[in-house]
Amino acid sequence: MQHLPFEIIAKQGQARASVLSTQRGDIQTPVFMPVGTQGAIRALSPQLLPQTNSQIILANTYHLSQRPGAHLVEKHGGLHKMMNVDLPILTDSGGFQVFSLKKSEITEEGVAFAYEVDGKKTFLSPENSMEIQQKLGADIAMVFDECLGFGIDKEAAKKSVDRTTRWEQRSKDAHTRSDQSLFGIVQGGFWPDLRKKSAKAICDIGFDGYAVGGLSVGEGHKIMCDVLDSTTPHMIWDRPRYLMGVGRPLDLVEGVARGIDMFDCVIQTRHSRSGIFYTSAGRIRMTDSRFRNDMYPPDTSCTCYTCSNFTRAYLHHLFRINEVLSATLATIHNLTWFAKFMSNMRESIIKGKFEEYRSWVHRVYPEKESAPPSNRTRNKKNKKNRKR
Amino acid sequence: MQHLPFEIIAKQGQARASVLSTQRGDIQTPVFMPVGTQGAIRALSPQLLPQTNSQIILANTYHLSQRPGAHLVEKHGGLHKMMNVDLPILTDSGGFQVFSLKKSEITEEGVAFAYEVDGKKTFLSPENSMEIQQKLGADIAMVFDECLGFGIDKEAAKKSVDRTTRWEQRSKDAHTRSDQSLFGIVQGGFWPDLRKKSAKAICDIGFDGYAVGGLSVGEGHKIMCDVLDSTTPHMIWDRPRYLMGVGRPLDLVEGVARGIDMFDCVIQTRHSRSGIFYTSAGRIRMTDSRFRNDMYPPDTSCTCYTCSNFTRAYLHHLFRINEVLSATLATIHNLTWFAKFMSNMRESIIKGKFEEYRSWVHRVYPEKESAPPSNRTRNKKNKKNRKR
Repeated sequence: MQHLPFEIIAKQGQARASVLSTQRGDIQTPVFMPVGTQGAIRALSPQLLPQTNSQIILANTYHLSQRPGAHLVEKHGGLHKMMNVDLPILTDSGGFQVFSLKKSEITEEGVAFAYEVDGKKTFLSPENSMEIQQKLGADIAMVFDECLGFGIDKEAAKKSVDRTTRWEQRSKDAHTRSDQSLFGIVQGGFWPDLRKKSAKAICDIGFDGYAVGGLSVGEGHKIMCDVLDSTTPHMIWDRPRYLMGVGRPLDLVEGVARGIDMFDCVIQTRHSRSGIFYTSAGRIRMTDSRFRNDMYPPDTSCTCYTCSNFTRAYLHHLFRINEVLSATLATIHNLTWFAKFMSNMRESIIKGKFEEYRSWVHRVYPEKESAPPSNRTRNKKNKKNRKR
Repeated sequence: MQHLPFEIIAKQGQARASVLSTQRGDIQTPVFMPVGTQGAIRALSPQLLPQTNSQIILANTYHLSQRPGAHLVEKHGGLHKMMNVDLPILTDSGGFQVFSLKKSEITEEGVAFAYEVDGKKTFLSPENSMEIQQKLGADIAMVFDECLGFGIDKEAAKKSVDRTTRWEQRSKDAHTRSDQSLFGIVQGGFWPDLRKKSAKAICDIGFDGYAVGGLSVGEGHKIMCDVLDSTTPHMIWDRPRYLMGVGRPLDLVEGVARGIDMFDCVIQTRHSRSGIFYTSAGRIRMTDSRFRNDMYPPDTSCTCYTCSNFTRAYLHHLFRINEVLSATLATIHNLTWFAKFMSNMRESIIKGKFEEYRSWVHRVYPEKESAPPSNRTRNKKNKKNRKR
């Protein structure tokens, strides 16, 4: 394991502003990490990544182990070289993806499943997730855990938490790469006592950082906050904390309020492809006909490449004709916007104004955001356009 | 009309190396012009365009007049500002697109047609094509002509050539924008005498440059060469000559051999989206399974961003997972490659080695290239991937 220096430079309540030092540079936290699931930030050429002010990105063990295969990534010299990205990278362990598959079979050894794309039978365990992640060569790897879903009874959840603890110990034992850090993951579903138990057990094993897993499974904002309330107080204070799979503005600020430092989410890039732009006046959908003649930039207070150079009318046109440049320009904006959103949040902690910032986020991004168009609708529309 | 200084600095046979000076910079010819049909080079953020060494791009009156509408482009201050492109832009007149529609109705006044996307009834004439193009504000506009297809008899072709001549005079009369140049278009189908007649008539009207139209309609390489042989000798020598819609390597070098200076084609960007890469060893299809583990760049002799930073294996992976970044990286390569292909051709003329260059092109890009996968096949494949 590579020890990650982590310095908390300011705090307000549970919220903290810190510096996480990696071999590829310092990360100012709280930080949002864009997701490059399959070894690419979708629709974004890596040469444009620096201008979004992203500090660290994510990639997924589950997908990459199948395509293009861990061996091939290793042959490139790791993810950074294959993707041509100099930023720190974090890989998840595959746990979350594997457990969301319908036909996975869990034993003490690990999880057997059929890869969703081609049905290929595969097995993931703490040991081979570590082996794969060491081949991928990210700066931070994640332990292989069991992710609890909804509807499980408490007895089963208890057993799962115990097994996850054993799996995380096995992950640590199997992890040998000295230039890669390893984070543990706290599970425990929606039971405060199980969360507490898991937090203590995982912190006792000892990792470079600690994640809160098992959220972002459709539980809603309030339950997410409740789970964090019963989890983070039992996690080591002076190590980085990472809330997995969470990324709406309100979730981010409430996560930070509960002592979280790192976040990842696919909505920033996925919503970009559907025409959704995050702005300082709330979320807008560029495909709305009201933008057809709108000569303003997406967000007048944003200085990203897209906002500096293009009008809503032009972006509306690009989405309307189904031109993929629309996704690129939206991704540049949304990633830049979230990087700024997080750095402003950090500034507010340093200046003792976090509560004002938090109130602003609640005003502009209230709990009941209008739902984004589903991917299904979008695909249907695309098919229709192609046929004509 | 804006007069375009055009200086021929070297020639070998009919082939010439020239400098075409526009208000937005000098263009070294022979030049290939990438196509941004609907106001965007597909899959390419404009900030990446300069690194491809493209010198001038194309946009289409027919599409832009419908979406987003000429008025809206004008409201932006023209195409350059809307697209955020500083390079010179050339707009075609809509003639080619309108005549390829099945239900167009041609009168002396102009052409009535239904827009292919929404069926909206529209009318294009020399006068309103000029009006639209002046609103679009490109550096070079094209006259509105009648494009002859296959299968027309000579009597009809003759009438069409005469009408095109009248339409081009009307185009010139209607064109008033002083900061925009206007090119005439020579028609005449596959009849040498009609081509000669058209060339003389169009040159007599007098334009800033002259295009050869009515090719790239499926006639094949040999007929294209024959038509050029019977056309370019009758065109003014010291004005720029533009062969419309042509862009395969062999067509380019044979066009230059017959005195052509400018070309445009959609294959460079369209093929990029299908995984086709042009290289100094011929065309390759990155989706081929033989590239799955290939650690070489697409073209070892190319210095573009894609070839400098990515392997064929990674690009193969991106195409396989249907990630649009694949199209961006392929477009960067292919546009850079064709810019270099043309500048090398220019150098060969200057150095008196054009015939060697021409032989090389015939060897690497012979007339019978393997056919690229059709868009139809590609779409089917994509749909299948999405479903899984």
